[in-house]
Amino acid sequence: MNNVINIGLLGHGTVGASVTRHLRLNAAPLQERLGVRLHLCRVAVRRANQRRPASTSFTTDWREVTRDPDIPIVVELIGGCDTARAATLDALRLGKTVITANKALLAEHGAELFRVANHHRANICFEASVCGGVPIIKILREGLVANRFDLIYGIVNGTCNYIFTRMTEDGAEFADALREAQRLGYAEMDPSLDIRGVDAAHKATILASLAHGSWTGLENTYVEGIRHITQFDIQIARELGYRIKQLAIVKRSGKGDTIEARVHPTLIPQHHVLASVNGAFNAVVVRGDVVGDTMFYGRGAGGDATASAVIADLADAALALKSGRNVRPPLFTSRSRARILPMDDVESRYYLRLTVADRAGVIARVAKILGDADISIASVLQPEAPEPKRGEKPSEHVPLIMMLHTARDRAVRDAVARIDRLSVVCARTEVIRVESFD
Amino acid sequence: MNNVINIGLLGHGTVGASVTRHLRLNAAPLQERLGVRLHLCRVAVRRANQRRPASTSFTTDWREVTRDPDIPIVVELIGGCDTARAATLDALRLGKTVITANKALLAEHGAELFRVANHHRANICFEASVCGGVPIIKILREGLVANRFDLIYGIVNGTCNYIFTRMTEDGAEFADALREAQRLGYAEMDPSLDIRGVDAAHKATILASLAHGSWTGLENTYVEGIRHITQFDIQIARELGYRIKQLAIVKRSGKGDTIEARVHPTLIPQHHVLASVNGAFNAVVVRGDVVGDTMFYGRGAGGDATASAVIADLADAALALKSGRNVRPPLFTSRSRARILPMDDVESRYYLRLTVADRAGVIARVAKILGDADISIASVLQPEAPEPKRGEKPSEHVPLIMMLHTARDRAVRDAVARIDRLSVVCARTEVIRVESFD
Repeated sequence: MNNVINIGLLGHGTVGASVTRHLRLNAAPLQERLGVRLHLCRVAVRRANQRRPASTSFTTDWREVTRDPDIPIVVELIGGCDTARAATLDALRLGKTVITANKALLAEHGAELFRVANHHRANICFEASVCGGVPIIKILREGLVANRFDLIYGIVNGTCNYIFTRMTEDGAEFADALREAQRLGYAEMDPSLDIRGVDAAHKATILASLAHGSWTGLENTYVEGIRHITQFDIQIARELGYRIKQLAIVKRSGKGDTIEARVHPTLIPQHHVLASVNGAFNAVVVRGDVVGDTMFYGRGAGGDATASAVIADLADAALALKSGRNVRPPLFTSRSRARILPMDDVESRYYLRLTVADRAGVIARVAKILGDADISIASVLQPEAPEPKRGEKPSEHVPLIMMLHTARDRAVRDAVARIDRLSVVCARTEVIRVESFD
Repeated sequence: MNNVINIGLLGHGTVGASVTRHLRLNAAPLQERLGVRLHLCRVAVRRANQRRPASTSFTTDWREVTRDPDIPIVVELIGGCDTARAATLDALRLGKTVITANKALLAEHGAELFRVANHHRANICFEASVCGGVPIIKILREGLVANRFDLIYGIVNGTCNYIFTRMTEDGAEFADALREAQRLGYAEMDPSLDIRGVDAAHKATILASLAHGSWTGLENTYVEGIRHITQFDIQIARELGYRIKQLAIVKRSGKGDTIEARVHPTLIPQHHVLASVNGAFNAVVVRGDVVGDTMFYGRGAGGDATASAVIADLADAALALKSGRNVRPPLFTSRSRARILPMDDVESRYYLRLTVADRAGVIARVAKILGDADISIASVLQPEAPEPKRGEKPSEHVPLIMMLHTARDRAVRDAVARIDRLSVVCARTEVIRVESFD
């Protein structure tokens, strides 16, 4: 029976149901390609009595899956960090392979999970955790194995990208675009993990750890949400030749001895390849020292795209079982001495949106603070103020846009804090980073 | 010594030298990631006395590499189909793994090579044969293994793409753009394999065989070159909202029971993701039945990009040796009953550029032929004639552009042959296919 590999599934929501369906629909090509049959033999669900495919054996006790001695591969699709963590650890301690799409679990407990996996010679596969159906984990670990990764950056959260696309293409306001994303099922009913950048930070942490060779940890990924980006910013960015995207950025700097990992809204040039990645799609650019720039694009979420990645992991895990040996060294055990660069020391260019009193001498006072901090101004724009909303009277304050040359993040934030204390500055200055990735 | 894998190299040109260099430069991360050391121990070259890295043992007899019992992996970078075929067969018959970047060899002799490999339980790895550093073979075979491939299409020849990019962006004429490509090293001094579409057809044949599961053969790939595309076509396409790209297209149609493989210049919508893939870059869109549309982009040629793919194959081959078993079933042995669709039966939309006498009634006569063949016209454009070249007098003939709705290829070609016999038609009608890949 070497040619049948038994699989257990934890969770049978959208992704679980899609995995079940596609394992059945594409059983023939899968068996032909792998030389083994993937047999889904047990599924743990939270509640009984849901409608089920008749052929599979359901249980409401996840231990009946993780502890079944005939099940060497467990697919964790529970979500969250409680039961998912317990079940994953349980399976790993029995030396099983766990396949997970759970980026939150990995980002928050990755160090523990990979330590336990290595100790018990178990495996964790997590293709589905980043960029849905785009096999970015395999691409980094295998397809581009020849490379050191100088730079990995991209759009890894479909909800934020959908919102920015609607704001850019249709002039929608943030709140309307978010409602639309929820209506279409791109955003959760509680979209805060997306909007606050946390979901993208989970993924950035995984990418950073792969690039780094050892586990960097969520606490070392800087994160900013997108809620402060206004329709006005989108328009000004466009006038200046940019688009705004929520990006995850992982960068080796200082001759490769530091790693930065950050998630924040970013102005990128309108002709940049990521500028035309729209809607709920994801795309990641990988710059390798051998291959140069490559880009990988596809649906970042949804049951089917995620199922495609889960089944790819199932295929690899089944072949590894067939070979009977763990041939790859354990992950995240590199002794790389690269240190994590604190956000304070990260360098970027900047877009500042100030709200100032409409009077002479304002620019000079702001410019003096920047000059004193050795931050040089690339350009200044005094655009028309946005139209007042219906019923509001025109503001006596006017917007002032400053584009800054490359500067240290801490220096810019300190300068902005001083700017915001000027009497002529009437609201908190918004700071958006600008990258061209040349 | 299980932890050192010996490698032999055949050929030490641009790609070979790049493989040697990057194996050395990235030896540390490679060993860390793989748990084995890749040791390049013997290199066969055509002529002695070239400057060599001192540590490697060179020979001018390729058999000293293929027959060395201590060398289980042979990298074939000779090029061409004579020595390369002999050396590849020699190594395969000894059960070795052969890694090749040679798409011509595969496309012309793939059936034989894979048969011999399967017979001797040997392996052929060919990541570098399509799209340079983009790991498209691994993506199709492993990352997207869950999918049936309904459609694979893309830009797989950097020379043609460079020429079309220069023609589109700078208004260059074909001949000037080609000279520029040669000057920059993108095109060979004899660029005919690129320009005639043969190189792209080699790659399309490999992609079609992967999608199909068994070897389709170069003779089943339809191929058209790009030499008939003029600056005038580029401009008209742009006016109509299109870009012209040389594409390789592999498509399952008729409920998946037929496969088409074709290479030809194609009008694609200007907002299509491939329309902005410019210069010598390659990009492939893969539409899977599970994952939906994905796209993979990067440098399609050059020593370093190709070396990245060769080293990825080396890594996989080394790990497979370490595991001691061939866990994957042999390639291209599917009993798929899908048949190859003859080009006659392929359906597409069309752009026709006619050269006609400047008189009344011409459109009616052309339209009648198309109508009689049941081919419907989407639009007709009578643009300004192109400026006469210096010293030439203005032509008495005028261009006439017709965009056709979807039709069978044979029907269109037959109709065009009849159109070209009309007395009012003054030159051969050029036919370019139009695809939007909806």
